[in-house]
Amino acid sequence: MKASKKVLVIHGPNLNLLGEREPGVYGDQSFENVNKSIIEKAEKLNVECEIFQSNHEGEIIDKLHSARHIFDGIVINAGAYTHYSYAIRDAISAIKIPCIEVHISNVFAREEFRSKSVIAPVCIGSICGFGIESYILALQVLSNR
Amino acid sequence: MKASKKVLVIHGPNLNLLGEREPGVYGDQSFENVNKSIIEKAEKLNVECEIFQSNHEGEIIDKLHSARHIFDGIVINAGAYTHYSYAIRDAISAIKIPCIEVHISNVFAREEFRSKSVIAPVCIGSICGFGIESYILALQVLSNR
Amino acid sequence: MKASKKVLVIHGPNLNLLGEREPGVYGDQSFENVNKSIIEKAEKLNVECEIFQSNHEGEIIDKLHSARHIFDGIVINAGAYTHYSYAIRDAISAIKIPCIEVHISNVFAREEFRSKSVIAPVCIGSICGFGIESYILALQVLSNR
Amino acid sequence: MKASKKVLVIHGPNLNLLGEREPGVYGDQSFENVNKSIIEKAEKLNVECEIFQSNHEGEIIDKLHSARHIFDGIVINAGAYTHYSYAIRDAISAIKIPCIEVHISNVFAREEFRSKSVIAPVCIGSICGFGIESYILALQVLSNR
Amino acid sequence: MKASKKVLVIHGPNLNLLGEREPGVYGDQSFENVNKSIIEKAEKLNVECEIFQSNHEGEIIDKLHSARHIFDGIVINAGAYTHYSYAIRDAISAIKIPCIEVHISNVFAREEFRSKSVIAPVCIGSICGFGIESYILALQVLSNR
Amino acid sequence: MKASKKVLVIHGPNLNLLGEREPGVYGDQSFENVNKSIIEKAEKLNVECEIFQSNHEGEIIDKLHSARHIFDGIVINAGAYTHYSYAIRDAISAIKIPCIEVHISNVFAREEFRSKSVIAPVCIGSICGFGIESYILALQVLSNR
Amino acid sequence: MKASKKVLVIHGPNLNLLGEREPGVYGDQSFENVNKSIIEKAEKLNVECEIFQSNHEGEIIDKLHSARHIFDGIVINAGAYTHYSYAIRDAISAIKIPCIEVHISNVFAREEFRSKSVIAPVCIGSICGFGIESYILALQVLSNR
Amino acid sequence: MKASKKVLVIHGPNLNLLGEREPGVYGDQSFENVNKSIIEKAEKLNVECEIFQSNHEGEIIDKLHSARHIFDGIVINAGAYTHYSYAIRDAISAIKIPCIEVHISNVFAREEFRSKSVIAPVCIGSICGFGIESYILALQVLSNR
Amino acid sequence: MKASKKVLVIHGPNLNLLGEREPGVYGDQSFENVNKSIIEKAEKLNVECEIFQSNHEGEIIDKLHSARHIFDGIVINAGAYTHYSYAIRDAISAIKIPCIEVHISNVFAREEFRSKSVIAPVCIGSICGFGIESYILALQVLSNR
Amino acid sequence: MKASKKVLVIHGPNLNLLGEREPGVYGDQSFENVNKSIIEKAEKLNVECEIFQSNHEGEIIDKLHSARHIFDGIVINAGAYTHYSYAIRDAISAIKIPCIEVHISNVFAREEFRSKSVIAPVCIGSICGFGIESYILALQVLSNR
Amino acid sequence: MKASKKVLVIHGPNLNLLGEREPGVYGDQSFENVNKSIIEKAEKLNVECEIFQSNHEGEIIDKLHSARHIFDGIVINAGAYTHYSYAIRDAISAIKIPCIEVHISNVFAREEFRSKSVIAPVCIGSICGFGIESYILALQVLSNR
Amino acid sequence: MKASKKVLVIHGPNLNLLGEREPGVYGDQSFENVNKSIIEKAEKLNVECEIFQSNHEGEIIDKLHSARHIFDGIVINAGAYTHYSYAIRDAISAIKIPCIEVHISNVFAREEFRSKSVIAPVCIGSICGFGIESYILALQVLSNR
Repeated sequence: MKASKKVLVIHGPNLNLLGEREPGVYGDQSFENVNKSIIEKAEKLNVECEIFQSNHEGEIIDKLHSARHIFDGIVINAGAYTHYSYAIRDAISAIKIPCIEVHISNVFAREEFRSKSVIAPVCIGSICGFGIESYILALQVLSNR
Repeated sequence: MKASKKVLVIHGPNLNLLGEREPGVYGDQSFENVNKSIIEKAEKLNVECEIFQSNHEGEIIDKLHSARHIFDGIVINAGAYTHYSYAIRDAISAIKIPCIEVHISNVFAREEFRSKSVIAPVCIGSICGFGIESYILALQVLSNR
Repeated sequence: MKASKKVLVIHGPNLNLLGEREPGVYGDQSFENVNKSIIEKAEKLNVECEIFQSNHEGEIIDKLHSARHIFDGIVINAGAYTHYSYAIRDAISAIKIPCIEVHISNVFAREEFRSKSVIAPVCIGSICGFGIESYILALQVLSNR
Repeated sequence: MKASKKVLVIHGPNLNLLGEREPGVYGDQSFENVNKSIIEKAEKLNVECEIFQSNHEGEIIDKLHSARHIFDGIVINAGAYTHYSYAIRDAISAIKIPCIEVHISNVFAREEFRSKSVIAPVCIGSICGFGIESYILALQVLSNR
Repeated sequence: MKASKKVLVIHGPNLNLLGEREPGVYGDQSFENVNKSIIEKAEKLNVECEIFQSNHEGEIIDKLHSARHIFDGIVINAGAYTHYSYAIRDAISAIKIPCIEVHISNVFAREEFRSKSVIAPVCIGSICGFGIESYILALQVLSNR
Repeated sequence: MKASKKVLVIHGPNLNLLGEREPGVYGDQSFENVNKSIIEKAEKLNVECEIFQSNHEGEIIDKLHSARHIFDGIVINAGAYTHYSYAIRDAISAIKIPCIEVHISNVFAREEFRSKSVIAPVCIGSICGFGIESYILALQVLSNR
Repeated sequence: MKASKKVLVIHGPNLNLLGEREPGVYGDQSFENVNKSIIEKAEKLNVECEIFQSNHEGEIIDKLHSARHIFDGIVINAGAYTHYSYAIRDAISAIKIPCIEVHISNVFAREEFRSKSVIAPVCIGSICGFGIESYILALQVLSNR
Repeated sequence: MKASKKVLVIHGPNLNLLGEREPGVYGDQSFENVNKSIIEKAEKLNVECEIFQSNHEGEIIDKLHSARHIFDGIVINAGAYTHYSYAIRDAISAIKIPCIEVHISNVFAREEFRSKSVIAPVCIGSICGFGIESYILALQVLSNR
Repeated sequence: MKASKKVLVIHGPNLNLLGEREPGVYGDQSFENVNKSIIEKAEKLNVECEIFQSNHEGEIIDKLHSARHIFDGIVINAGAYTHYSYAIRDAISAIKIPCIEVHISNVFAREEFRSKSVIAPVCIGSICGFGIESYILALQVLSNR
Repeated sequence: MKASKKVLVIHGPNLNLLGEREPGVYGDQSFENVNKSIIEKAEKLNVECEIFQSNHEGEIIDKLHSARHIFDGIVINAGAYTHYSYAIRDAISAIKIPCIEVHISNVFAREEFRSKSVIAPVCIGSICGFGIESYILALQVLSNR
Repeated sequence: MKASKKVLVIHGPNLNLLGEREPGVYGDQSFENVNKSIIEKAEKLNVECEIFQSNHEGEIIDKLHSARHIFDGIVINAGAYTHYSYAIRDAISAIKIPCIEVHISNVFAREEFRSKSVIAPVCIGSICGFGIESYILALQVLSNR
Repeated sequence: MKASKKVLVIHGPNLNLLGEREPGVYGDQSFENVNKSIIEKAEKLNVECEIFQSNHEGEIIDKLHSARHIFDGIVINAGAYTHYSYAIRDAISAIKIPCIEVHISNVFAREEFRSKSVIAPVCIGSICGFGIESYILALQVLSNR
């Protein structure tokens, strides 16, 4: 059966260290396992899911651009770029694909600077605080649209 | 079959006008229908779900207090109280039941004052921007814990 | 003769102490007399006028909601809630009845915090500084619409 | 019959373009007609009314000064000077004639900078949002004192 | 012997959970025991003491109003309302009964937002950081006046 | 040949001292020569160009008003009024003639207060830092429209 | 004997009302008498002194410009323009004549906005708080240079 | 009977002028009498009390240091140093003796700068507004620990 | 004929989507056509023009570095990097080639964050609001130097 | 002849290095010579003048206290303490002797932090920017009172 | 002899231009010579030292990640990224290798924006202002741990 | 052999408690041992080193003044005075001896107020976070100059 939706999942900077980096905050699952879970879940939702990670702001922008005409939705955890990358914000609003912002941890319960997202205003919504499940919920929203 | 989880859903001020108030922002489903959808979905998740609405900050605090020893989780859309009710924040952190903040609209894409949530730091996570589905996703998170 | 317009006058917190509270600022007429004057003036304007006072933010919101389909206009002196009740603001903008903000004293000539009204942006206009006459002028505007 | 009160109405910068400038905000009555309406209404209130318009901060100050010993009250729409002319503020407080600030539009529902009035603290009160009626209400207040 | 003074003790939101809520911060005595201690101490000071708790801003204001002509002093722990309830502030200053602000914990050593009290300027003084003893000290001050 | 466009060039306060005032910042050409250059260049662009200078905020507003129905475009160097004259801003947006903001020096490389222009949001664009050439470029833009 | 220095004394907005305006703050000497005192004192210092008053920002700038090549120093009380007229500031720094800022009252002991002078950084010094004597001291400084 | 507790009372800058300085704010008892009252009260509480006053920030720090191993508690009215002396704050937190901040007047009802205490976060609590009784209450708290 | 000047034109992030991205704001010409227009115009100005686009902050810095000893001037539209890339700012000021900041839209008429440019202070000037013509004007300035 | 007035001149921190410290800002006269000039000038004004210098905030406060009942006026250059010593401010307002703030340099033309004086609001006036003459002018004001 | 420690030295954006860029600020040694000096010094400290430079935020993050399990310490001069790269900050705190922040110039004596480091809070310490020696000192600290 | 350099080491407030005060932050070496280590290290660097500690801002200023003509460099840990003593800042810049700011702990990883140093801009550099080694590194820098 052909997947009904194609979704791009973007992991921003430092997320490749998942499982290793502050497990108390980010969980102890390895990055590979996290991605495997996401893909398995996506399949159950009949969503074809590509996963992309980069520590480079520019590569994230390039990837967002290349998503045009290919993907039906985007799930983005922009990591620390969330808080200052107006360039990623512009990319999201330029490509006009529905985009959901996710975070593994509850960013509002951490350092002050993490409370501000410059990309949230151009996403359709935000999900944070639920570990990997944040990504799964976002996939689910996109598959339902 | 006994429901595995009991969840309290709290609608804050003005949410009783759903369907009638700014349908472009909040959707055109009536408040009753929204609640019916939530309960139906909860049943599918094997979650017993009580719904409570009040325009009174104090009643919301009273309800949160009364949830102790009864509910396994709380889904709260505190409406405009989100932005200044440190009293609701204290109630949430006092009762120690996992609480998820939800919003129907993407609060980050509206007036500046809606970008600040004083209750987010004491919730386990936040979901906003997906209409009624914000509530459903929160129920799902709580049912999975 | 049937009154041409129905107007709801809302007095917010502490206004029930009129005549007793800081007479230098708020005048020395008792709350009852103030209301009597408002009603008499309303009659002259051929306006049917209901008066409501509450110290409870939630009751003011409930009253605003209940005004739908009944009143043609609202005159509100939200007292100190003026400065922080985004919940009352949302109620006013939800019900779509023309609403005028009034204050007895010139709020701009007092403590700094009184210079900011969070409800003014959703009212059709504001009148402050003229004692009870602030209410009368607002009635007059509504009766002329 | 001699007019019981003499009132000076001051229109600040750009108000001479009334009827032509952003009619959606300021109405489509010409400046001449607005003034005619004000004078007619004043006559009914038995108020003798002089109307003055200037785009020059200094001329407005000069006019305020010259009002001493002549006028019983002043109605001022200082236009954009409202937001920064501490010199007009000083003039108003120097001359000790009761002064009412008026605005045609609801300044609180527009750009952020329009929410701050530096002259409001030295006026006896403010009226905004009611089109030309803002002026009429102010005249009425002064005629009743 | 007739009590020489009548004092109203007001507990604001969430204080009814004393003993249960964050015992490290607020102590482990139950709310009932705390009140019993306050009343016993009051008796020793020959003070008749009424205790009132509410999570409702409006009820606290109503209670403050009803204290007129009955009480000689008020001890208020406004809980989180301390930080934003200008309506309670106005109630305190309207009733003209000497009022003392108390807090169980040292509010200055906690989250930033707890450092600002909007009611302190209209109280005669403040006491914080001494657990229940904060209330007792306040009673003592009022009994000595 | 008839000029295809009529453009008004407005020099704000202190620009009449060009050539004499801080030549390191503003260049050493006299005000007269600057204007001659502007007019010569305008002729080459087939633009009829009127030049106006005033140190008076009010006169600049009057001039802007009088430009209605006469000019096709405006080039304005509002000098220091750039940073606070909301009255000039209102005049520009009222008259609906395309207006370009110019500055001789790079205002962003000078005192902090020069970084903020209150008129830029109502102009079609801004040019700064190129000496007299800033004016010429603006003329060119207007002649090309 | 020829006066050794020529000094221009500039009174800004509202200073023409001296003697009449808030005598508690500004003294009860009439404007004419103040100027007579200044001139008499100037003569004793062998200073030729011209006095200029205007409520118009633009006229003050024009006057400052015309002072070039004529005056050896300037004493300026810019009144409320002190706090926002960057145009007057630019005029002072453009003409390169030593300029002293004076105020009759102690501006630092009044409203917050009076604590900021935008012209002080381009004057050689400031004198405030000594009534008319502020002007005299400034003359004396200029006569001694 | 040996005193059960030893407490150091520190008066900061300008408190030596008690009785003479703004009696409306600080009371009219002389500094000597205030201290006598404190000592008498301490004796009743079975507390040995040393009193120290200095206008020197450094001497207050030295005194705090020397209190180690000698005193069981400290009562400090740091006067104006309260608002900026991070050095005194560090001294208090370094010596680890329980310290109570006191003020004679209600600092929250005076100039804005008096609302911020940099030492409060390292004290166990604060008492202000009760005249000399502020000190007595603090002694009592320390004697009860 | 040899070109008299060599100019590097740098397009920052998201500008490769010109023609496709928000045509109302950025115009509907494709990126390729825009560049063709720029090059054609450059040729007329006898300027040899290289065009570079990157979404990567680091690549823009590398390109700026490589421009040393090769180009006579730079035209840069840094896109969203304009608002926070102090690294690009440092690159511009390090290489000492005259650089002009351009923007297609009037950045001052859009979101607040677009009003601040961190690179403007190290450029020789700025041009914004004129579509592609912003680039052409900048080329012209550089060709005239 | 007995001096008619006794004035205390206080030099704050680092002023003992006059003549040596940044002569471009503070002049090249030695501290001793400066003081000699002040005393000579005082004698001419028939003022008995004591000069005091200290780098210690506490000593300046002690000296201010000791001035009570002895001096008729105080001239104070509090050096850098000007900008943060609320303790010196309190001392000045406590002793009720007329006090004039002086500065050698124009503090408003230097670093931002030097623009704020915490002692100015409790002085009768301020003089800055005239080198030693700032002190002389202050003496003159005090001798004339 | 085997080096006892392995240290990674990271040069951020624009540091490759050392010797050429603002020599007054950054010194006139070429980048190659600087690195040679660092390596020579490292050898003397028995430290094996790898040097890495990039203008790309993402490459710096990648390099930091790859340092795990290889290096005992990191010396980082993040250049302008110091002031906004929360992504580099997260990388440093994720890899848990002791990291020292260095700067060639005294960043606190330059533009305001250079005073804030977002990476300092996750480093073990900072060294700035000593030219190349800043790096050497950091190496020394790491070799001593 | 004569020492080649003379360096003054200044310890500010509370540093005399080293070893006793928060050993987790400041280390557990006693103040005497710390100083012995510093002196020993200085000898190895052929630096003659005087150590000075005071809790008094004024004494630190006096000591800085007395260092003129005697010392070749200064190492200063101004403790909490770092954050507000503009008087110490002025002393450092007045004496023109190269001065290095040191801190034992990483001040940027602690309370917000510790991130701002008012003396850093007048020092040649800063070193923080390395315990006593911060002092040693500073000595080394000075000995190498």
